[in-house]
Amino acid sequence: MTETPQFTAEEIQKLRQLLDIEAIKKVKLLYSQLMDSRDVDGLAEIFAEDAICEFGPYGTWHGKQEIHENYMDVFKDGVPYGGFHSTTNQWVEMTGPDTAVSRTYLHDLVHEPDPRTNPVIWYGLYDEDYGRIKGEWKITRCTLQFLWPQRLITGDWPGPFPPK
Amino acid sequence: MTETPQFTAEEIQKLRQLLDIEAIKKVKLLYSQLMDSRDVDGLAEIFAEDAICEFGPYGTWHGKQEIHENYMDVFKDGVPYGGFHSTTNQWVEMTGPDTAVSRTYLHDLVHEPDPRTNPVIWYGLYDEDYGRIKGEWKITRCTLQFLWPQRLITGDWPGPFPPK
Amino acid sequence: MTETPQFTAEEIQKLRQLLDIEAIKKVKLLYSQLMDSRDVDGLAEIFAEDAICEFGPYGTWHGKQEIHENYMDVFKDGVPYGGFHSTTNQWVEMTGPDTAVSRTYLHDLVHEPDPRTNPVIWYGLYDEDYGRIKGEWKITRCTLQFLWPQRLITGDWPGPFPPK
Repeated sequence: MTETPQFTAEEIQKLRQLLDIEAIKKVKLLYSQLMDSRDVDGLAEIFAEDAICEFGPYGTWHGKQEIHENYMDVFKDGVPYGGFHSTTNQWVEMTGPDTAVSRTYLHDLVHEPDPRTNPVIWYGLYDEDYGRIKGEWKITRCTLQFLWPQRLITGDWPGPFPPK
Repeated sequence: MTETPQFTAEEIQKLRQLLDIEAIKKVKLLYSQLMDSRDVDGLAEIFAEDAICEFGPYGTWHGKQEIHENYMDVFKDGVPYGGFHSTTNQWVEMTGPDTAVSRTYLHDLVHEPDPRTNPVIWYGLYDEDYGRIKGEWKITRCTLQFLWPQRLITGDWPGPFPPK
Repeated sequence: MTETPQFTAEEIQKLRQLLDIEAIKKVKLLYSQLMDSRDVDGLAEIFAEDAICEFGPYGTWHGKQEIHENYMDVFKDGVPYGGFHSTTNQWVEMTGPDTAVSRTYLHDLVHEPDPRTNPVIWYGLYDEDYGRIKGEWKITRCTLQFLWPQRLITGDWPGPFPPK
């Protein structure tokens, strides 16, 4: 007879953390899918009420309502999946029981231009803060560093990795 | 002395679901790796017997045997990893104890052409259904929407996100 | 009253394995983030003391010290995130309690050239071995197959999938 091996306290802690990390990764997946499908109402819901978006040439947006309005404006003529916010290499680190930071690579693709052009319009990098608010993970800060075809970065970026 | 904290019933349910979601993601990883390594026999095995593939200009394929034959035909002259079905942003949602849906971005790359050309031949989006069949997750439906350089989509697509 | 369902022995084993697989994926995430942020000291730490890197036209490197020196040389003029080692499709398989293999697609991007050029300088594929050493997962072998714009592969590659 084989006995069932039980989890250690450390394993239980790691599995709890894994559930949080997977929940955060899913918020980032929703971010792209909701933006690209032009569901701006759904998109706004994954941000905290007082979230800040630092989007370089697109400006700095404060609070869920402004984020909603600005995305509405950006995508007002867009067709669903007229482009991809294709993300790779997402690194997530918990910074407390209810907070985390994330760094992700962005391939920003627009499908709409004529086929002769390269559909990649930006390569960029997202630095994000996440917070658990009333039991749900929300984006509390989203900073996009623009790297190609123009390098438009915030002054002190990147600093040491992992970011604080 | 520190006591071992036990999982709640909700955590146990979420961890069970995570195992399923990771198993489904692994099927999608196998899909690209098996296709790109030209292991068409292995590739056919990740589909359900009555699976349907809706591949736009490549046709609609019914059942594992037809899927196997058609992939054999598509890749009959291919070298292993002569291209990548590079996938990002996979979103998976359980729709029942033994069913799930998935949405994934595709960067379809061909390495073989001369170096002056852009190796990306398609940007597309996979909508898939998965089913647990005899304990194993299989693809039961795979629809590829073609978005670049030509937009070739099914009539009612995309509808609301998440897809049903 | 609802009773808490307990994990089966098989589920416990799968969840333990998932913790290992996620730890290995995180090492691969660190690989790109540390390299691209030009933290060569941190980068060297994710390799085993006797790790081997087979990097085709960039040579074969033996041991952590040589790996550190060679990365220092490669990146001596680089700006942080002057490029991305964007990775997708990472497939990880345990091959023993303390060993695993991994296969990953690479989009190697350089942001620095003038905007008219395609920033992708290589498409490649990583085959890696991982080992648990003093409780931490380290890269013990890293082989990069170069696929575009030139196909520079090792003689017997790829062989059957999954790789051994």
